[in-house]
Amino acid sequence: MAILVAVTGWEAGPWVRRLKELAPGRRVLETGIDGVFAGNRDDLEAVRYVLAWKPRPELLASLINLQVLFSLGAGVDNILALPGLPDVPLVRIVDPDLTARMSEYVAWQVLHHHRQGFAHARLQVERRWQELRQPAAGEVTVGIMGLGVLGRDAAEALCRLGFRVIGWSRTEKVIEGVASYHGKAGLEDFLGQTDILVSLLPLTPETAGLIDGPLLAKLRRDGPLGGPVLINAGRGGSQVDADIAAALADGRLIGASLDVFQDEPLPAGSPLWSLPNLVITPHIAAVSAPRALARNIIDQITAFESGGPLQNLVDPARGY
Amino acid sequence: MAILVAVTGWEAGPWVRRLKELAPGRRVLETGIDGVFAGNRDDLEAVRYVLAWKPRPELLASLINLQVLFSLGAGVDNILALPGLPDVPLVRIVDPDLTARMSEYVAWQVLHHHRQGFAHARLQVERRWQELRQPAAGEVTVGIMGLGVLGRDAAEALCRLGFRVIGWSRTEKVIEGVASYHGKAGLEDFLGQTDILVSLLPLTPETAGLIDGPLLAKLRRDGPLGGPVLINAGRGGSQVDADIAAALADGRLIGASLDVFQDEPLPAGSPLWSLPNLVITPHIAAVSAPRALARNIIDQITAFESGGPLQNLVDPARGY
Repeated sequence: MAILVAVTGWEAGPWVRRLKELAPGRRVLETGIDGVFAGNRDDLEAVRYVLAWKPRPELLASLINLQVLFSLGAGVDNILALPGLPDVPLVRIVDPDLTARMSEYVAWQVLHHHRQGFAHARLQVERRWQELRQPAAGEVTVGIMGLGVLGRDAAEALCRLGFRVIGWSRTEKVIEGVASYHGKAGLEDFLGQTDILVSLLPLTPETAGLIDGPLLAKLRRDGPLGGPVLINAGRGGSQVDADIAAALADGRLIGASLDVFQDEPLPAGSPLWSLPNLVITPHIAAVSAPRALARNIIDQITAFESGGPLQNLVDPARGY
Repeated sequence: MAILVAVTGWEAGPWVRRLKELAPGRRVLETGIDGVFAGNRDDLEAVRYVLAWKPRPELLASLINLQVLFSLGAGVDNILALPGLPDVPLVRIVDPDLTARMSEYVAWQVLHHHRQGFAHARLQVERRWQELRQPAAGEVTVGIMGLGVLGRDAAEALCRLGFRVIGWSRTEKVIEGVASYHGKAGLEDFLGQTDILVSLLPLTPETAGLIDGPLLAKLRRDGPLGGPVLINAGRGGSQVDADIAAALADGRLIGASLDVFQDEPLPAGSPLWSLPNLVITPHIAAVSAPRALARNIIDQITAFESGGPLQNLVDPARGY
């Protein structure tokens, strides 16, 4: 009944230590930072649960007694895309800590653009004391794409700060105080009202490349900020980096914040790094902290072994 | 029963237009941008209400039928300090729009320092993709000085974002979810727990120069951000600019955001402009918008003339 932490590019150590603290009697195995597992055949057979971030597909395929796969990120596209993915339940992370961190990031970047952070920074460099025309939050509409747990919490935090918030999702969702649109039919109405577009979309075949030049051209152009803003803290695969760069250059976007990119890490040679009015962060909007998340996973394993249901199961057909 | 808009350094026009829209039958007079009133003796006698921002003291003294003085800013120190201030009720602005704008500013700057905005901007300039250690909001304590309408609303917004919030004020205040301290006796306990100090204090003899080197030295030094942060969106007179500069230079503060200064406008030659990890904004945290505030004032005048009480009266002895 061993647990295997199978991660590529991260140190597994903090996860392993935290799991052992929470479940002292349980065997916890780990891969190296290259995702390779050095265990023998008995070890492979002992593994019932895997905590995965970009796991090696051949490793998953060799776990003949695997029962549940836990994704260590909110997005599961990196796991669903694996060749020969074992046919076991896949659980995605839904954790109050992760959700709160995402809402922190969204509120931070929405406020940065709303309160003209770049313009104030330029005035400071020029040592100029000059008041800018500042709309109230209630005059600004934030449009959130993706109304799952993360989108709903961000919507609520932004409403508390006084913004008008609207939402768009694949299927119909009802959130108090948030006018919601859905599907292809609702997209144009949603975009036409949106001053600050926030994407928290998962990466699925339907969202791949969705945020492109034609979509950005549909955002509200005569809003109180002087033009639209894009914030993507979802998945880089849902955006077209070059179209965003072009829109920032020609003024179709007056600002943007990107935490995710088509290629990550963003190559040092990318022209995005030096675009004005663009905030770049290295996929850190909501980073899973072992301290907060390991408890959730151990609780789920305990419930599962007592015959209980798993929470936050991914539907592979839907993609999230 | 005329209303006079008496402002120095601002155009009175937008206020006058808005007041006339809301109260078409009423006479509305105005000063020039230099605060000088060009009316004759009959005009002076007609004035019952003044809306004031840095009014000229000799003008106020000449209004022999003045009944109520409305301050157009949340702080009233500029009016209380006038020589020969007429002995009429002084009303300060308490408006949902002004309150919301202040909470926007506080949340923006708290998130900027909490989410390491300066460090991320430097990484972006260097084209480096590097994850920084990021504490959760719940690990960070924001200490708010001043628990009036503005402080309470900011506390609530920060709690919603997940921060631990504590407060300090002159007299005892009770806010749900916020541990509160008061008076000189409570100051040291308050500061010793505070990672991000937010001042929304009014300027009074008790608060003048309060935020100085010795006070900053009492902030929590071993917190999750690596050191304390100061945000002042209250009054410049409550801080010692040079002590803040020194604390930023020697690391007693790891960052600060100042919207207010001892001398405003901040002189172009001030060394503050170019300090690293300092955000400077030109006293714009919460600017009164005529659209939102004029309604409140007209409603108060109407109620006053029907014999009702005035809201948000200033106690001159207390200073706010």
